[in-house]
Amino acid sequence: MRPMARWAMTGGLLTAALAAPLSTPAHSAPATLYAPSALVLTTGHGEFAATTAPERAVTLNCAYTTSGTHPDPRRGCADLDRVNGDLDRLAVLRGNEAERPCTKEYRPVVVTIQGVWRGTRVNYEHTFANSCLKETQGASVFSF
Amino acid sequence: MRPMARWAMTGGLLTAALAAPLSTPAHSAPATLYAPSALVLTTGHGEFAATTAPERAVTLNCAYTTSGTHPDPRRGCADLDRVNGDLDRLAVLRGNEAERPCTKEYRPVVVTIQGVWRGTRVNYEHTFANSCLKETQGASVFSF
Repeated sequence: MRPMARWAMTGGLLTAALAAPLSTPAHSAPATLYAPSALVLTTGHGEFAATTAPERAVTLNCAYTTSGTHPDPRRGCADLDRVNGDLDRLAVLRGNEAERPCTKEYRPVVVTIQGVWRGTRVNYEHTFANSCLKETQGASVFSF
Repeated sequence: MRPMARWAMTGGLLTAALAAPLSTPAHSAPATLYAPSALVLTTGHGEFAATTAPERAVTLNCAYTTSGTHPDPRRGCADLDRVNGDLDRLAVLRGNEAERPCTKEYRPVVVTIQGVWRGTRVNYEHTFANSCLKETQGASVFSF
């Protein structure tokens, strides 16, 4: 691209950026510059979240920087990136069952993820047959 | 209390504390010592959360220490303490409408709070007629 064309393009983008706030009505919040990703994750012993007391609850933020009370926010956000928001894939993401065999004991553990992922509301729930399966089959985002 | 009695009591508590982990089954997570409080809050222009894109989403943790991407976690948690988890009271908590008059313009803003408050799942939604009312009528936990 020739320098003049590049300058014209930059100028156009700048004008658009400066013009945008003028179109927002009074009392309106300024437009966010990135899609928010803020989640709360819970886990508890039971089959369904609706009937299970959450034993643990942690937060996870995946914006410019990763943060939260999740023990490993960086890895948790990386998991969510890997499945590209398709949370159903989280339950079988790790796939290292061979490394640590689990019994077939049925003592269900339900995990939930609620909040916003890249600007879209999420409300996810998955039940593992027991904690061992949660730790070995599930994504590391469930390790909290 | 006489020293001997105090010692016996301490011993009893210690025994109870040491015995507790033995009763938890294999693969079970250790019992949490406090009820978790981890929340995600959203806001967006619209009437119902289900049909409104979240423009902002922040996290709020109210445990031993307060934290989160909420701009004022300490004050946010104090608000939740004030209403003692009765989230319906948040929408009229501030009550300083006289300080800044709002128009009656109807440009609804919906706020949501999801997650866990003191060990209980919460799923709250409230719609303000406009942003001004959210800022003046609502609790400061909604200021994000």
